Amino acid sequence: MELVIVRDRRIKYDGSAIKSHWAYRNFGILGDSLVVFRGPCHVREDEMIDLEDVIERREIKSDDMVHYIAEIFDLPNVLLASTIQKLFVAKLCEVLKGYGIETERKGDDIYVNGKKLSISIATVSPVSIKLHIGINVEAKGIPEGVEAIGLKELGIEDIEDFMERTGRALVDEFLKIKKDSLKVRWAQ
Amino acid sequence: MELVIVRDRRIKYDGSAIKSHWAYRNFGILGDSLVVFRGPCHVREDEMIDLEDVIERREIKSDDMVHYIAEIFDLPNVLLASTIQKLFVAKLCEVLKGYGIETERKGDDIYVNGKKLSISIATVSPVSIKLHIGINVEAKGIPEGVEAIGLKELGIEDIEDFMERTGRALVDEFLKIKKDSLKVRWAQ
Amino acid sequence: MELVIVRDRRIKYDGSAIKSHWAYRNFGILGDSLVVFRGPCHVREDEMIDLEDVIERREIKSDDMVHYIAEIFDLPNVLLASTIQKLFVAKLCEVLKGYGIETERKGDDIYVNGKKLSISIATVSPVSIKLHIGINVEAKGIPEGVEAIGLKELGIEDIEDFMERTGRALVDEFLKIKKDSLKVRWAQ
Amino acid sequence: MELVIVRDRRIKYDGSAIKSHWAYRNFGILGDSLVVFRGPCHVREDEMIDLEDVIERREIKSDDMVHYIAEIFDLPNVLLASTIQKLFVAKLCEVLKGYGIETERKGDDIYVNGKKLSISIATVSPVSIKLHIGINVEAKGIPEGVEAIGLKELGIEDIEDFMERTGRALVDEFLKIKKDSLKVRWAQ
Amino acid sequence: MELVIVRDRRIKYDGSAIKSHWAYRNFGILGDSLVVFRGPCHVREDEMIDLEDVIERREIKSDDMVHYIAEIFDLPNVLLASTIQKLFVAKLCEVLKGYGIETERKGDDIYVNGKKLSISIATVSPVSIKLHIGINVEAKGIPEGVEAIGLKELGIEDIEDFMERTGRALVDEFLKIKKDSLKVRWAQ
Amino acid sequence: MELVIVRDRRIKYDGSAIKSHWAYRNFGILGDSLVVFRGPCHVREDEMIDLEDVIERREIKSDDMVHYIAEIFDLPNVLLASTIQKLFVAKLCEVLKGYGIETERKGDDIYVNGKKLSISIATVSPVSIKLHIGINVEAKGIPEGVEAIGLKELGIEDIEDFMERTGRALVDEFLKIKKDSLKVRWAQ
Repeated sequence: MELVIVRDRRIKYDGSAIKSHWAYRNFGILGDSLVVFRGPCHVREDEMIDLEDVIERREIKSDDMVHYIAEIFDLPNVLLASTIQKLFVAKLCEVLKGYGIETERKGDDIYVNGKKLSISIATVSPVSIKLHIGINVEAKGIPEGVEAIGLKELGIEDIEDFMERTGRALVDEFLKIKKDSLKVRWAQ
Repeated sequence: MELVIVRDRRIKYDGSAIKSHWAYRNFGILGDSLVVFRGPCHVREDEMIDLEDVIERREIKSDDMVHYIAEIFDLPNVLLASTIQKLFVAKLCEVLKGYGIETERKGDDIYVNGKKLSISIATVSPVSIKLHIGINVEAKGIPEGVEAIGLKELGIEDIEDFMERTGRALVDEFLKIKKDSLKVRWAQ
Repeated sequence: MELVIVRDRRIKYDGSAIKSHWAYRNFGILGDSLVVFRGPCHVREDEMIDLEDVIERREIKSDDMVHYIAEIFDLPNVLLASTIQKLFVAKLCEVLKGYGIETERKGDDIYVNGKKLSISIATVSPVSIKLHIGINVEAKGIPEGVEAIGLKELGIEDIEDFMERTGRALVDEFLKIKKDSLKVRWAQ
Repeated sequence: MELVIVRDRRIKYDGSAIKSHWAYRNFGILGDSLVVFRGPCHVREDEMIDLEDVIERREIKSDDMVHYIAEIFDLPNVLLASTIQKLFVAKLCEVLKGYGIETERKGDDIYVNGKKLSISIATVSPVSIKLHIGINVEAKGIPEGVEAIGLKELGIEDIEDFMERTGRALVDEFLKIKKDSLKVRWAQ
Repeated sequence: MELVIVRDRRIKYDGSAIKSHWAYRNFGILGDSLVVFRGPCHVREDEMIDLEDVIERREIKSDDMVHYIAEIFDLPNVLLASTIQKLFVAKLCEVLKGYGIETERKGDDIYVNGKKLSISIATVSPVSIKLHIGINVEAKGIPEGVEAIGLKELGIEDIEDFMERTGRALVDEFLKIKKDSLKVRWAQ
Repeated sequence: MELVIVRDRRIKYDGSAIKSHWAYRNFGILGDSLVVFRGPCHVREDEMIDLEDVIERREIKSDDMVHYIAEIFDLPNVLLASTIQKLFVAKLCEVLKGYGIETERKGDDIYVNGKKLSISIATVSPVSIKLHIGINVEAKGIPEGVEAIGLKELGIEDIEDFMERTGRALVDEFLKIKKDSLKVRWAQ
């Protein structure tokens, strides 16, 4: 899994990055990848993946987020997609603990003191698993009715360093699950 | 995923529970299952699944452990097995935090103050995913050279309640990843 | 597999219900589902799934049908789709026998006295198996050249009861094949 | 799916024919196959596939049966195995109707007037689907407590012709589900 | 795998033949197929499959080519698609050797004396593997900057015979890999 | 795919290397691997994979061979196994051409002037694809009735260099098929 941290510019997340081969088309990365970038978030309705959001006509937006887009080609299976997503979110909570921040994970959401820090979605394309995690840098531009919080309010000012640390942690976690899957014999 | 907490007796974990349909053969549970039981652990060499352990001739044993045996029939794939395993271990750390215990997760191992609390393995049979997690009740009968710790040393005395809480938490986590996998549309 | 019998209204089947997650989008059902409803049938050409129909420019229509839309998430495989479809059609014949009606099944079609009672299609989306079966309530509005028959001509007047009985029978059949698949050990 | 009718000799079914590549090893048939033969049935306990039988210590035996052993290489998936099995049993009921015999199918069992006519099992090997159906020629040598019936008591005297007709019907049914699976476009 | 050699007319390859069920829609062939035809090649940008070509804005065109379109329904997996493609290209080189022509294969490209003889792409649809190979009949209408060569310059004048021989060779190769896959037992 | 050339010792190939995780158990290589070694070949009957050999009671032996054992974890599918095998054998023929040796490939066998140079088998374990190719160094100890030839008779004296070149060529070929599989978008 190749890691790309986009440092030199902001990229808006409008949901289109969830399509297959986005990392190859935009960054030339072949195979499993994690692209970390920063920018506003406003998901167009026709790019929404979570049908619960579609049905309930929820808005997905935030003025400033750190975004993680992962693509994994091993097996385009939704259960694997959903499991990797939860594990990645759990890992982000572990990294946040290293910053001294206590979090609560509810499935694929991160909360701090009852306030929502993140959004996430995981699905498949016909050839890959795709997932997005977004973490608020500041709790601005959030849909009404959602009590949110951002990294800056939690005392994390060096966002680029945070992108680096978390990106590396997620890639290491993926390499670990992959490695462990290769050293076990099958059971009867 | 059906949950069974074995309260009325101790069961020794010798590695044979990793075989497919163990829960059906022994508890009559059809389909996805999590069986939680307590007992000593001594894995016979011919039942060892982690080939790294086999190669390095490690012993796997402990006098008293809480054991979790999960079987999942969705897809016998080792990467999914390994991912669910890590997520379950992360979830156990989250439950332990609810007891006021700070843990460190390294892949599929739980450490407290640098001491090893748990063991785990995940693999596939030709029809299912199988995983085992064992948590020391007391750090007794551990292989030499391993600095271990147990639940009792961490102040958890009501083991049956711990089995109940953690078993329920793991099943809920699994139901959540399953549910989320069913409500997302696929991406282009 | 959740069963929904739509009793309070008619729904036209135009072919769009064959898309993935139709039951979740329209009825909020997560996971495997069978939705039974009544209404006219007129499949738009761009929604036709059977390419033989497309090539031969067949029309698919009927003024009044009982419709069954099933979605199964276990494995998006066309052979499994086609097999479940035939089994469901065979099951409907068995239920009809309970009404005293002798049928002949030809693949996925039901005939009574050489007249066509039903239509059906089975395919996959990238995440699921989808199938449709339609049974004429009355043989009206059928494409020219097709000799058809309907439930009313066969003496079945209580259509809602028929929807209930057949829907329940199909769900039970699915649960049976699922259950049996979980209690067999694998063979060498 | 190649059909072999063994006419020149009796073969005892002891359960070992459920292993993968049995038809290739014994009859030189490559790929999907259906072998129909006649002989006694006595399944050795270590060859039992249905774990419910193992748990309940049921005996599986009959003095004289028509046996069907199918192997299908498309996809070693237990749900597909279980579905094809039920469809094949339903097909056998349809053929029996052609003999004027009214049957009742309960899952994978055929009953006539409440008496058991058949046994069946379906599972996977690591490379294929395997299934066995056995139909009593005479209700002799049946385990105690099972009320059974056989083809002869139903008036079917020409067993070889029955083997031929049913074998051909099952192969045709398989070819139909396969063919239909190839002519449908996928759905969104 | 059914072989169709289109002898009576030219067909332009614009990339749309890479869609699933193209052979069934156009030639009525069910299941695995290889269609060999002759005609110009000009792939529309929105039909391009190789994203490297898309990114580098390469043109794919030639005035006169022999085209091979294969569709294989066994398993819609990109690694299998890519492997069959390379094997087919290697087989074409072997057939060309029978004409006394020395070739060099670089992945999925055939070169003669450093000049490009062919183009190729392999991918999946949600239900099948699809691949295209095109061999220049004459090196005309090729994108600028590409040094190309064609069959006529290599002394092959009877193009229809070449289509026949190569088509037959590719189908035989596929039947061989399929057959061999069915006669091996699985390994522990 | 990691390449290991065993230079310091001879290893007898008795068929047991076809088991899953052989490279990890013996060389500590995690994941896809190709191990090239030299030694005699005598496959024990219970290790034979090709059932045609078993049925015809063929012997598989040679006094001195270069052996290639590949394991690939992407997908334990026999058709992919068989296809990679043929491609690898075709690649070996291409390398031999670089030595000035004209070969004829018949499926997975290499012939020179009608004499057999190689043996090969490809299959799956429940977690991986496994394949073996053996090339005679000298045509000694070959089963009676087989006209064989070896590398030395073809003028290749530096066997270690041959092992290196061919091993590298096969790994490069695998990396190429893998890479190409990742840069294509899926087709409708």
